[in-house]
Amino acid sequence: MPDTSTATRPSTKLLERTLSNLRTAWRDVAASARGAFGSSLRPDLPPEDADRLRQQFRDCMEAKGGEVSARARAAALGRTYLGLSPAGRRRFLEILATDFDTDQQAVDAAIEVLRAAKEPMARRAAERALRQVLLPPRRRLLTHFNALPEGVKFLVDLRAELIPMARDDGALASLEDDLRHLLGAWFDVDFLELHRITWQSPAALLEKLMAYEAVHEIRDWNDLKNRLDSDRRLFAFFHPRMKLEPLIFVEVALVNGMSGSIQELLDPQAPLGDPGAADTAIFYSISNAQKGLAGISFGNFLIKRVVDQLAAEFKGLKTFATLSPIPGFRPWLKERLKEEGDGLLLPTEKRAFAGFGDGTDVSMLMDADGWVDERAMAAVKPPLMRLCARYLVNERARGRRALDPVAHFHLSNGARIERLNWRADLSGKGLRQSSGMMVNYLYRLDRIEANHEAYTGEGKVAASSAMRGLIGG
Amino acid sequence: MPDTSTATRPSTKLLERTLSNLRTAWRDVAASARGAFGSSLRPDLPPEDADRLRQQFRDCMEAKGGEVSARARAAALGRTYLGLSPAGRRRFLEILATDFDTDQQAVDAAIEVLRAAKEPMARRAAERALRQVLLPPRRRLLTHFNALPEGVKFLVDLRAELIPMARDDGALASLEDDLRHLLGAWFDVDFLELHRITWQSPAALLEKLMAYEAVHEIRDWNDLKNRLDSDRRLFAFFHPRMKLEPLIFVEVALVNGMSGSIQELLDPQAPLGDPGAADTAIFYSISNAQKGLAGISFGNFLIKRVVDQLAAEFKGLKTFATLSPIPGFRPWLKERLKEEGDGLLLPTEKRAFAGFGDGTDVSMLMDADGWVDERAMAAVKPPLMRLCARYLVNERARGRRALDPVAHFHLSNGARIERLNWRADLSGKGLRQSSGMMVNYLYRLDRIEANHEAYTGEGKVAASSAMRGLIGG
Amino acid sequence: MPDTSTATRPSTKLLERTLSNLRTAWRDVAASARGAFGSSLRPDLPPEDADRLRQQFRDCMEAKGGEVSARARAAALGRTYLGLSPAGRRRFLEILATDFDTDQQAVDAAIEVLRAAKEPMARRAAERALRQVLLPPRRRLLTHFNALPEGVKFLVDLRAELIPMARDDGALASLEDDLRHLLGAWFDVDFLELHRITWQSPAALLEKLMAYEAVHEIRDWNDLKNRLDSDRRLFAFFHPRMKLEPLIFVEVALVNGMSGSIQELLDPQAPLGDPGAADTAIFYSISNAQKGLAGISFGNFLIKRVVDQLAAEFKGLKTFATLSPIPGFRPWLKERLKEEGDGLLLPTEKRAFAGFGDGTDVSMLMDADGWVDERAMAAVKPPLMRLCARYLVNERARGRRALDPVAHFHLSNGARIERLNWRADLSGKGLRQSSGMMVNYLYRLDRIEANHEAYTGEGKVAASSAMRGLIGG
Amino acid sequence: MPDTSTATRPSTKLLERTLSNLRTAWRDVAASARGAFGSSLRPDLPPEDADRLRQQFRDCMEAKGGEVSARARAAALGRTYLGLSPAGRRRFLEILATDFDTDQQAVDAAIEVLRAAKEPMARRAAERALRQVLLPPRRRLLTHFNALPEGVKFLVDLRAELIPMARDDGALASLEDDLRHLLGAWFDVDFLELHRITWQSPAALLEKLMAYEAVHEIRDWNDLKNRLDSDRRLFAFFHPRMKLEPLIFVEVALVNGMSGSIQELLDPQAPLGDPGAADTAIFYSISNAQKGLAGISFGNFLIKRVVDQLAAEFKGLKTFATLSPIPGFRPWLKERLKEEGDGLLLPTEKRAFAGFGDGTDVSMLMDADGWVDERAMAAVKPPLMRLCARYLVNERARGRRALDPVAHFHLSNGARIERLNWRADLSGKGLRQSSGMMVNYLYRLDRIEANHEAYTGEGKVAASSAMRGLIGG
Repeated sequence: MPDTSTATRPSTKLLERTLSNLRTAWRDVAASARGAFGSSLRPDLPPEDADRLRQQFRDCMEAKGGEVSARARAAALGRTYLGLSPAGRRRFLEILATDFDTDQQAVDAAIEVLRAAKEPMARRAAERALRQVLLPPRRRLLTHFNALPEGVKFLVDLRAELIPMARDDGALASLEDDLRHLLGAWFDVDFLELHRITWQSPAALLEKLMAYEAVHEIRDWNDLKNRLDSDRRLFAFFHPRMKLEPLIFVEVALVNGMSGSIQELLDPQAPLGDPGAADTAIFYSISNAQKGLAGISFGNFLIKRVVDQLAAEFKGLKTFATLSPIPGFRPWLKERLKEEGDGLLLPTEKRAFAGFGDGTDVSMLMDADGWVDERAMAAVKPPLMRLCARYLVNERARGRRALDPVAHFHLSNGARIERLNWRADLSGKGLRQSSGMMVNYLYRLDRIEANHEAYTGEGKVAASSAMRGLIGG
Repeated sequence: MPDTSTATRPSTKLLERTLSNLRTAWRDVAASARGAFGSSLRPDLPPEDADRLRQQFRDCMEAKGGEVSARARAAALGRTYLGLSPAGRRRFLEILATDFDTDQQAVDAAIEVLRAAKEPMARRAAERALRQVLLPPRRRLLTHFNALPEGVKFLVDLRAELIPMARDDGALASLEDDLRHLLGAWFDVDFLELHRITWQSPAALLEKLMAYEAVHEIRDWNDLKNRLDSDRRLFAFFHPRMKLEPLIFVEVALVNGMSGSIQELLDPQAPLGDPGAADTAIFYSISNAQKGLAGISFGNFLIKRVVDQLAAEFKGLKTFATLSPIPGFRPWLKERLKEEGDGLLLPTEKRAFAGFGDGTDVSMLMDADGWVDERAMAAVKPPLMRLCARYLVNERARGRRALDPVAHFHLSNGARIERLNWRADLSGKGLRQSSGMMVNYLYRLDRIEANHEAYTGEGKVAASSAMRGLIGG
Repeated sequence: MPDTSTATRPSTKLLERTLSNLRTAWRDVAASARGAFGSSLRPDLPPEDADRLRQQFRDCMEAKGGEVSARARAAALGRTYLGLSPAGRRRFLEILATDFDTDQQAVDAAIEVLRAAKEPMARRAAERALRQVLLPPRRRLLTHFNALPEGVKFLVDLRAELIPMARDDGALASLEDDLRHLLGAWFDVDFLELHRITWQSPAALLEKLMAYEAVHEIRDWNDLKNRLDSDRRLFAFFHPRMKLEPLIFVEVALVNGMSGSIQELLDPQAPLGDPGAADTAIFYSISNAQKGLAGISFGNFLIKRVVDQLAAEFKGLKTFATLSPIPGFRPWLKERLKEEGDGLLLPTEKRAFAGFGDGTDVSMLMDADGWVDERAMAAVKPPLMRLCARYLVNERARGRRALDPVAHFHLSNGARIERLNWRADLSGKGLRQSSGMMVNYLYRLDRIEANHEAYTGEGKVAASSAMRGLIGG
Repeated sequence: MPDTSTATRPSTKLLERTLSNLRTAWRDVAASARGAFGSSLRPDLPPEDADRLRQQFRDCMEAKGGEVSARARAAALGRTYLGLSPAGRRRFLEILATDFDTDQQAVDAAIEVLRAAKEPMARRAAERALRQVLLPPRRRLLTHFNALPEGVKFLVDLRAELIPMARDDGALASLEDDLRHLLGAWFDVDFLELHRITWQSPAALLEKLMAYEAVHEIRDWNDLKNRLDSDRRLFAFFHPRMKLEPLIFVEVALVNGMSGSIQELLDPQAPLGDPGAADTAIFYSISNAQKGLAGISFGNFLIKRVVDQLAAEFKGLKTFATLSPIPGFRPWLKERLKEEGDGLLLPTEKRAFAGFGDGTDVSMLMDADGWVDERAMAAVKPPLMRLCARYLVNERARGRRALDPVAHFHLSNGARIERLNWRADLSGKGLRQSSGMMVNYLYRLDRIEANHEAYTGEGKVAASSAMRGLIGG
């Protein structure tokens, strides 16, 4: 039974807390914006409040009372935002996006100047001017939200809320674009700090790992402690202004030989390994923790730095590889089956199906539950392995990128598809995604650049001969 | 269902770990003591190994090869100790206690010099010399164990093991005495660091609180997190060389009015209080965490420093009080009942019993389970409250100290017995110890010294008039 | 006699060090760029090396081998830069500025799309596209220099070198503009950390204060220690990635009454004041430490935060004011004298001059050295005070900003011109700049916003009635 | 010219500060001891104050008002001590030493019990009791001084003051003995922290190195910075409660080949070495910084740990040696000359003297100034080298310890006398102590224990064959 500490925390107290936080937020708003909103402000931002808000934005952007005051006002606006209902928040963002957009007349004028510029010097000056006038004034305000005590986290979370809204709204899309540029500069990878997380780390941080882990759920504190034991490593990137918030983290097992089963890796009853004697580092989980940093990627840097750090600490490590899920295999297979039916199977494979049902039911490929029967499993294994290898190595999405998103990530980083593992993840999720198969991606330091070039340049996928053999049939 | 992270940790892995640690320990021993023990060393220390051990002690005490080597040898001896069976450890300690005791002839000689000394100057020199010769050589070795990586913790744990052995063995009692002196100097209260523990503290530390909490069990991580919330405080003393090991810790609730129910305090569904608005700090649990520091007390310093720190942080706090268990009440009551029978009851109390059973069964006082009946509860409450007040205020152990150990602790610190609370701890333990009653001890800063003096000097117990009224009946 | 530790450090060793650093730099370059430059690279970057460099830039921007490699290449390019001669560095920057400028055809095309866009949605998308295409590719490379161990400092220093070159070169001006944008985002004031600097601070940091102090030279370690004494404060802003590099710092004296003499403040023999009893905080020196952050100002934030921190620590402080130089007074006066001659003087002032020379020599106003004569000093004081007050309060530069740059800085921050002090700075520099006068700017927290608004909005200068009285005559 | 920052700090301000500190001290004393001393207390402690002091000691030792109060009272007594004149302080210590000495009657009684005890168990109990009663009550008070904010430093400095007084006073000697025991326990070497000190260390700490350096004076900040450069190391032991106070420190140069000249090592114009390429670590200065820790030695531990740390960091280091002064050579030589005259010289040596004066003046050996003449130097070098080697290797003090104290220190640590260096220290001090010669002691890790044993056991001095060759002549 899972630890209930974070999952089902008593609702009464939680509600109480939320209200208390809201009350705090509102109290702050009242204190800092007294006379502007007063008590008439409503969480869903009715029109009259919208006008007052508009004026506040304006004061803030014009830096009435100086830069220092402008920052303080922006912080008050940030607290206002936190106090609003979802509808109110969307309204807030729409005002920001539309009322404080670029000045179109100024843009048009700058364009005319540019078109008229003949001399290189004049052209350059005109470009600089145009670039300047194309920066919408709201960008300045976004920056000022940094004055909030947790300003960076505020903006990251703001973007997380904004991304879905921006999908169908051009103005919000522009605002989201502003935010991505801003966060892109602030989250430059060389500002990030790589920290190892251990059982000595703050509980408040460990709790977040449990919430953010996206690949193999951390069931409880005991499971987590096990993943932080002496033969395991967990590394995360942090931003200096978001101390207890991991940005992305990776879990590593120090083992002998390339792991082929996630349940074995996570078994809390497994004997403790001696990390000093390990020859292989298995990256078995990589999770992005901040939705608001989507598109600002540092996963490849994380892997590179962790590899460097482990290689420096453990001289015996020879192999760096992942044990990765194959999230798109079964959806793809379903589609294939619909289109091709038993044309998917090789003659030998078909023969093996003969003993079951009417002997033609290829849908058995999709029926993971039916494999309690060992013979059935023996029948489905060859075609599933073959098709999964084909899916990973040959199937492509738009452009020439690999269809499987995890495969695309590791191939872009310069890894090679190394080995497909049967019955590697027997959790419900593993069976649903990939019929229980997982794959190892191999990171060979001396091949990373070449693999990356071949993949991004020519769309060439690096795969072991064993993988190619599986497909080859 | 409780979090099982510390309680029922899978035994297979635990065993594996213990063995692995032992193996490490043995490997170290072998490495550092090669040629002395060799492979013939046995965990239960057979006679031939005892002789080798004796020789090693001797080399170490004579600082063969210099002080630096002596420390290294002591550390190796410490690792040997850790590798022994309980019987082997006792043997190890006996050798240390008896073979490296004071030199009796030297003591006798020094005594003769002292007895002959007439001049003050000579007398002083003789005293210094006698003092020196009375220090057994084993003390030097005990000190050297500090060279172990966790040397201080090693000695604290060594004493924890030694205390029960020393009860019936004069030689081991002397060794224990040496250790108490040494730890007494090292754990001088002004070397200790007071730290607040929060949810940001290392999980490895928080885990220990759960193990060490001795008053109100911490059920799981959720319960612990609740005790670290914004209207709670947890402070502990630490030694600079035992970083993640609390020595003693106290849990405090910031509330309004003096608390009268521990279940209310610990209820995770209770609304979150505003600590800034609190007028009362309730110390609801104080736990010693290190058995090996028994008799080296800092509990009173802890309370004093925490009161100072809270008073500085929260200007609104007017009252500092405990909500304390009364561990000795029911054992005492049982004894009284056996001796006095219904003579314990007042006439009015007896009459209230008339409606139950044969109307004379005073044993109903002991039968906490029977009180589901409201009328029965109404009947037992007055005599139980009266007798408990009497127990706390008037009953004495040897000397003039209060019979109840918790009462003695707080009275020695200068607190006053303030209020008795009915149905204050309805846990099994609370009902068993004190029929569910708890007591508040009040710390008034301006009365602490006078109360302490009156109690330790004249045995006078400070109690509120309400408490005295309860007895007076 | 001044401490010579930083000033005249023996040149032999310094040279040795520089060469050693260069050698290190070169060795690194060689290691990371082997085969590209080889040994033919010359510090002044001859044409053939320029071509190779161009290719390296290109590889880096196209992220050949992946993002991780691109960063590593940028770092290598950064080290190459450090190894070049001044001429070579300029060449390096010119290549970056011109070869990796915006793609003009792409810009023109995006402009056409924008001009054709009618719908708001299309217009917005076109603006975003144009904005994107206006960002020159070299920006990406500038960011990548952050991968250098001291990457942020590298870019700050790069800009310090670039600013003078950019004055007469459009391409370099655009590059400088890129850098200003980048550093502007990175040095957002809310990323900066305010630290108090004390005698407990690292010597390596204190040494830099001596080098960077721009207002009142720190003569030696003793002078510095005196400025860090218990009745003094020194605060600086730091960036998290430039640990031992102050960005800007302010020196404060905690005194009684508004100081009117800098020599008194800096006198190491002055009695030590009791900071707890002080009623006035005098900001007597503010120095920008990084030339490469010109135009990215945080001076006003620094003053505000220091005022807040001091006010919180010392409840007795009532007055926050500066004791500031008047750097432009004498140059202005000289100009005035040239144009107006003795028309500058009032009749009463003229009469006081009668006793000297031929009684008409107003140039005596400029002759600070001549005032050894007390009578002469009595004659020049009234006109100098009057004219200086007029200079500070009434004289304006372009727009409506105060002519004196220090006055402009404090007036923009919302301060008031409070008091002019005669014989306040008798150092050579003080006499040369402002005939030995200094001025107090007063920061009244409740007036800062209004003063700022009046000054930036209407050009209205806040001045005490005493100051106006001085002019009024 | 030397930096004057610490040496000749302006006296006015210093006096002011001392008075201010005193005033603070007195104010505290008055606040905490009001009504006891009142204003009649005099810095030289007249008899009536002595009586009050005696009473205060008594209250404190009896823990009137509880342990917490006792600590606070001890701290007040400590501040009283700081406020007294030297005569007052001695009086204070005498009271403590004599009035709170052991209870002689109790000691005598405990002795009688011990003498009567026949059974081992009874004997042990009697010894424990006697040991207890031999501990003078003042020890408890000494411990309590630890409650002062800088309590440990207070006690160290107290002992520094006490040591000279204790030489001729039995009571104070006993007090000093108490203090040595207490500090001996607190300064157990495994509590000490080894830190490297660099130019990034606090100026307040670096300043102390300049004050404490006892071997080769640090002339100014520049000289110090040079000793902290990248080819130098400086390590110190610290106690966790004395943060900015080094206990003992060692200065190391990373060089190639064994250094033979201290002036070369300290030359700020010498080229900077590459520490990674060094094959030799030269320990050229070891200074004890705390007089109050005399007799509690950790010099050998310091050398051992620094050697370990350097060996781990720099794999190329093959040789660990000192470059040490020979402080006792010239005093010894003078004595020899007085007794033996020219019998000290070998015939060949005598002949070489023939060319000077009357050719018999062996006193030329003592006349360092006369050697400007190269021929004279050639004449004195052989006998001086020979005699110095003899002095180091063969001359003994009481017991069998080497006569030269520095030689004794390193020989006890297991070093070997390796090489005598001519014209190695040409400073005034070097010429005065040892005619400019210095010696290398070699630490070979695999010989340390054996050398130590041979020296401390049999008095056998380890010396290189070169050294023995010099003597042999």
